[in-house]
Amino acid sequence: MEVVVPFSTDRPKSRLSGVLSPDERSAFSRAMLRDVLDAVAAAGGEPRVLATDAVDLERPVTVDDRPLTTAVNAALDARLGESPGDSGPVAVVMADLALATPAALRGLFEGGRDADVAVAPGRGGGTNAFVADDPAFRVDYHGASYLDHRQIAADAGLSVAVVDSHRLATDVDEPADLAELLIHAEADGDGGGGGESRAAQWLREAGFALDTADGRVGVERE
Amino acid sequence: MEVVVPFSTDRPKSRLSGVLSPDERSAFSRAMLRDVLDAVAAAGGEPRVLATDAVDLERPVTVDDRPLTTAVNAALDARLGESPGDSGPVAVVMADLALATPAALRGLFEGGRDADVAVAPGRGGGTNAFVADDPAFRVDYHGASYLDHRQIAADAGLSVAVVDSHRLATDVDEPADLAELLIHAEADGDGGGGGESRAAQWLREAGFALDTADGRVGVERE
Repeated sequence: MEVVVPFSTDRPKSRLSGVLSPDERSAFSRAMLRDVLDAVAAAGGEPRVLATDAVDLERPVTVDDRPLTTAVNAALDARLGESPGDSGPVAVVMADLALATPAALRGLFEGGRDADVAVAPGRGGGTNAFVADDPAFRVDYHGASYLDHRQIAADAGLSVAVVDSHRLATDVDEPADLAELLIHAEADGDGGGGGESRAAQWLREAGFALDTADGRVGVERE
Repeated sequence: MEVVVPFSTDRPKSRLSGVLSPDERSAFSRAMLRDVLDAVAAAGGEPRVLATDAVDLERPVTVDDRPLTTAVNAALDARLGESPGDSGPVAVVMADLALATPAALRGLFEGGRDADVAVAPGRGGGTNAFVADDPAFRVDYHGASYLDHRQIAADAGLSVAVVDSHRLATDVDEPADLAELLIHAEADGDGGGGGESRAAQWLREAGFALDTADGRVGVERE
């Protein structure tokens, strides 16, 4: 299955601006992107980056500088043909799902076999990943897109499978999400080891560590 | 399987104090508790509340006013016997998992069949639910308990299954979690209908609604 991974080269992770400089946000975003692409490939998907500008990667890249919703709908149009069954399904997976594992992505792909549309909601009502194989499905990433996408599918008479995954629900947008990334990197026993994700390794090398001093888990930077 | 649901009658949800009065926090907590108990029963579990004081419920209640860690370890001692296989497994599920569905809980219970301990991590490194069937497993709910529980299991030579569920990862602690509850209540099509969870219904009747005005999803109260 082709898996489209939208990536903005020019829109830094502004909600991380309190803890990371623009250059750091760019480097960290690319580390997450490469982790996501590797996880997609390990899950049996064929990743293709949908980037707003050229990006240097060892993976196929399509450049489309239009807004996210427009670019993704164009990608769906190009792949899903005019009626169901014209092609196989296509998936769209966000580039900041730094906790995504091959197992979590396989769960998404399997959801797509059971329904016309499988959606992995993000925390806060976003749409972090989906699989669709019917050209009647369209995206609209403004606002609470998970609710909008459920409605779009319902209006088109499409069945929906919801993929319940904490890893896929966690898009890395704000400092608390950095803690989430480090928690799961540490829990999976790859702290500092060769199996550590690029994004977790990048954070550690940038001086970030878990901070549990006040009872809640956050990050500190040395 | 017996499923222990710890519930504090005297410790309100203090991180919701900006949006709910003490009496409201108490009522909302009880609504969530009853939703969790119903979901556990619908998933095939036998719920038992482990409460810090008497609580009026149509379910079995054990009162233990000691701290959470002590009370849960005592409950494990009472149920798991002295060696593996003395009894069936026991589960512990937090009372504020207002998004928990029977399907998500069945995923937890199934995880417990594949490993000595199955853990559903909470966002922020907590331990929102687990199943254990070996008395060598102990809990310690201070700090990043998910990491601690992984370590406790590893030190005891116990295999661990991680249950990757957004619904089980979402304990309702702070205002953003109220939005999460309303998003999924609305997505599942029960907005105002008879199938709505008690907690979601309580929030709506208290005047809460989703607020997507600024691009991010939060709650507003009329």
